[in-house]
Amino acid sequence: MKYFQHANDTIAAPASPQGMGAIAVIRVSGPQALPIVNQMFPSKNLTQVASHTLHVGKLIWKGKWLDEVVIAVFKAPRSYTGEDVVEISSHGSPVIVQQILQALTEAGARIALPGEFTLRAFLHGKMDLTQAEAVADLIAAESEAAAQNALKHIRGGFSRDLQQLRNQLLQFAALIELELDFAEEDVEFADRDALYRLLQDIDRHVSQLLQSYSWGNVVKHGLQVVIAGKPNVGKSTLLNALLNENRAIVSDIPGTTRDTIEELIQLNGLLFRLIDTAGLRVSEDVVEQIGVARTHQKVLEADLILYVFDATQVDISEWQQVLDWLQEIRKKHILLMNKIDLQPHIPEDIVHHPHVMCISAEKHLNIDALKNKMIDMALQAQAHNESSIITNARHYAALQQVKNSIEEIFQGLQQKLPTDLLANDIRKCLHDLGEITGEVTTEDMLDYIFSHFCIGK
Amino acid sequence: MKYFQHANDTIAAPASPQGMGAIAVIRVSGPQALPIVNQMFPSKNLTQVASHTLHVGKLIWKGKWLDEVVIAVFKAPRSYTGEDVVEISSHGSPVIVQQILQALTEAGARIALPGEFTLRAFLHGKMDLTQAEAVADLIAAESEAAAQNALKHIRGGFSRDLQQLRNQLLQFAALIELELDFAEEDVEFADRDALYRLLQDIDRHVSQLLQSYSWGNVVKHGLQVVIAGKPNVGKSTLLNALLNENRAIVSDIPGTTRDTIEELIQLNGLLFRLIDTAGLRVSEDVVEQIGVARTHQKVLEADLILYVFDATQVDISEWQQVLDWLQEIRKKHILLMNKIDLQPHIPEDIVHHPHVMCISAEKHLNIDALKNKMIDMALQAQAHNESSIITNARHYAALQQVKNSIEEIFQGLQQKLPTDLLANDIRKCLHDLGEITGEVTTEDMLDYIFSHFCIGK
Repeated sequence: MKYFQHANDTIAAPASPQGMGAIAVIRVSGPQALPIVNQMFPSKNLTQVASHTLHVGKLIWKGKWLDEVVIAVFKAPRSYTGEDVVEISSHGSPVIVQQILQALTEAGARIALPGEFTLRAFLHGKMDLTQAEAVADLIAAESEAAAQNALKHIRGGFSRDLQQLRNQLLQFAALIELELDFAEEDVEFADRDALYRLLQDIDRHVSQLLQSYSWGNVVKHGLQVVIAGKPNVGKSTLLNALLNENRAIVSDIPGTTRDTIEELIQLNGLLFRLIDTAGLRVSEDVVEQIGVARTHQKVLEADLILYVFDATQVDISEWQQVLDWLQEIRKKHILLMNKIDLQPHIPEDIVHHPHVMCISAEKHLNIDALKNKMIDMALQAQAHNESSIITNARHYAALQQVKNSIEEIFQGLQQKLPTDLLANDIRKCLHDLGEITGEVTTEDMLDYIFSHFCIGK
Repeated sequence: MKYFQHANDTIAAPASPQGMGAIAVIRVSGPQALPIVNQMFPSKNLTQVASHTLHVGKLIWKGKWLDEVVIAVFKAPRSYTGEDVVEISSHGSPVIVQQILQALTEAGARIALPGEFTLRAFLHGKMDLTQAEAVADLIAAESEAAAQNALKHIRGGFSRDLQQLRNQLLQFAALIELELDFAEEDVEFADRDALYRLLQDIDRHVSQLLQSYSWGNVVKHGLQVVIAGKPNVGKSTLLNALLNENRAIVSDIPGTTRDTIEELIQLNGLLFRLIDTAGLRVSEDVVEQIGVARTHQKVLEADLILYVFDATQVDISEWQQVLDWLQEIRKKHILLMNKIDLQPHIPEDIVHHPHVMCISAEKHLNIDALKNKMIDMALQAQAHNESSIITNARHYAALQQVKNSIEEIFQGLQQKLPTDLLANDIRKCLHDLGEITGEVTTEDMLDYIFSHFCIGK
């Protein structure tokens, strides 16, 4: 397995994003980190300096001045990886970064694989697996809420609880294994009622985490909001009104996923993906209109639909068709009567419909109220406020397996299965729990997890 | 002037390139840098720590955990800017960087203007103006040679010499101003012969620097190589053969300027811009073919032309037309007989023509020899090997002015101008010299120079 063959190598990689900037940081970790960098740093003997200190000087390799740099020294175990770590801050030119990396490899380091620094932190016990995974989530976070959730995982809240429950189950497992040794004497060391209660505890915990996943996805990827309505009702104006000052916040961030029809806004730290479906409107040919594959897909994936009407010319038959359609697709929605600055006459029953809001996108009337309503509807998806939220598909799958294996133990207990079969089921459950926190790992699994990291982390 | 109104502010900006990465660095500089960051760093009192130390802890603002960070402390004057500097290394998520910047501004810092850190380094005497400008060049360097040259300027070689010469001229100026005070007595404190010799010295120096500019441009922007020839003679194959393993070196670097027809390679640390001009071939309608405006422009800008023939079917009339054309445009060139692996018969006088090389782009025959020839021809442009090279258009213009003002002093001396007019000319020359090193600056000039920096430098 590629990550484990050379676990004692000293590894190096750029740690700051690629591109031009004032500073670029190159990270070196491993037993030879200090001697290797020391070879190219004549101003001071880095192998003699204290941990957590900074040193300014020239980086020189084979007689060539590579750059004037700042060297940060972190000595094992007080470092990110738990090994000796040297961070080199150079001028932020890709050419210089490349020359330094080349010099480092010539001096004995090897270019790190993606996530290899964090893998080493995990292997040296600096963090468990969910914490390591949260590092990748934190880096990729597109909103404050996503970053906050990743930080929560780094702090270790969610896996610590599972670890404790697993340890309790481990004790039962030990007792049951002991029973197997005394099988002929037919004794019961493990209290079956206590085991049952523990399993219920684990099951409750796991179910809660599983439930948090849909909200977790909203936190991580944002709430999909489809804006629909006939042409010229003011959809684009609404989009702009919603984006307004918030737009800068998001579009300043490079790397956020965007295509021509998606705009991102952050409201109260939550991410909303606004999708302007020019193609979507409900008319007499409802089916034909919605049938456009792509638009249809967007509607199916939507968490919220904003349907915009021109309040100056409400078409009662369209209104009824829209209501029917929304009922059919069972999506959360807000019905917007736009252009109220023109003081249109809107039928009473429409104004008082519970999902209707009257706005003027152009004059910015009620836009803040609409934003608050959108936040409220987003928060409705949030089952539990302060408890842990999972966002990682691997965790979701592993928790599902835990839930299944607990179910099997329950059945086994009820059917008073022979102890050896029960022990088997418990071992499987321990294994599944351990896979989440990383107490049980396979090389393939670690390969999979860490290969999705960025270089230098 | 925007840069000087708030020179005592504490400024903050992202210092690492934008985007996702393992680490992002945010730089804070100014009298309040330590107290400001200290407000959000509960684990330790940063105002009490030693300079050049690293501190790991949580960054917390208004009760919200922003990230787990590493804080680097550089105390004035031992820092890049000469002020107290704090560098915050956070997780490399744009969202986190933005939250930290927002917290910093709420705590009393202001977002830095482009180049403002380096401007402060200049204002605090940490570097002269040419050194500051070289920092921007270093960051933007696209090749090893360009980086090396920028580093040379950062070391201060070229401006130090000018500074010394200027100081000598300053002494003469003082003596001549003294003569003015005693104008009625008709004395000469300043030895006119010695002044003449000094001016010759300055003139020689300035002329050398001016001459280095064309080579400086090659170093900075690369040598323009136009590949020309009829269709199907193997131009694209040649381009690929030249790019080969070297291509990765350059295309791994983001931010290098490329369009559809340009490819960059680095040979011996020098940058070559290969331009495949599909449109350019010399035929009977020479004028028409070359007349295509864009191609024509490329040829005019070219430093070197590689003209490719298919050696299996050399057309003698094309050969002659090409020779005539190359003579007319007076460009360096290499004539390539391609496909020699097919053992074609090539007329003797063509094989022995001094500019002809026989290659096979497909079989990679003589490609290394061609590369060496290209390097040789690039180095021919290098007038002087070890002396300073200027690459900056501002320096070139200022040196031109120095040369002109020296010329006027020469004429004044020859024409035995009255002392006050001579003093005037010398003052102008001192001013022009001072503008290069930054001993004479105007706010507009500094505005212009530093506004071309990237944010965070």
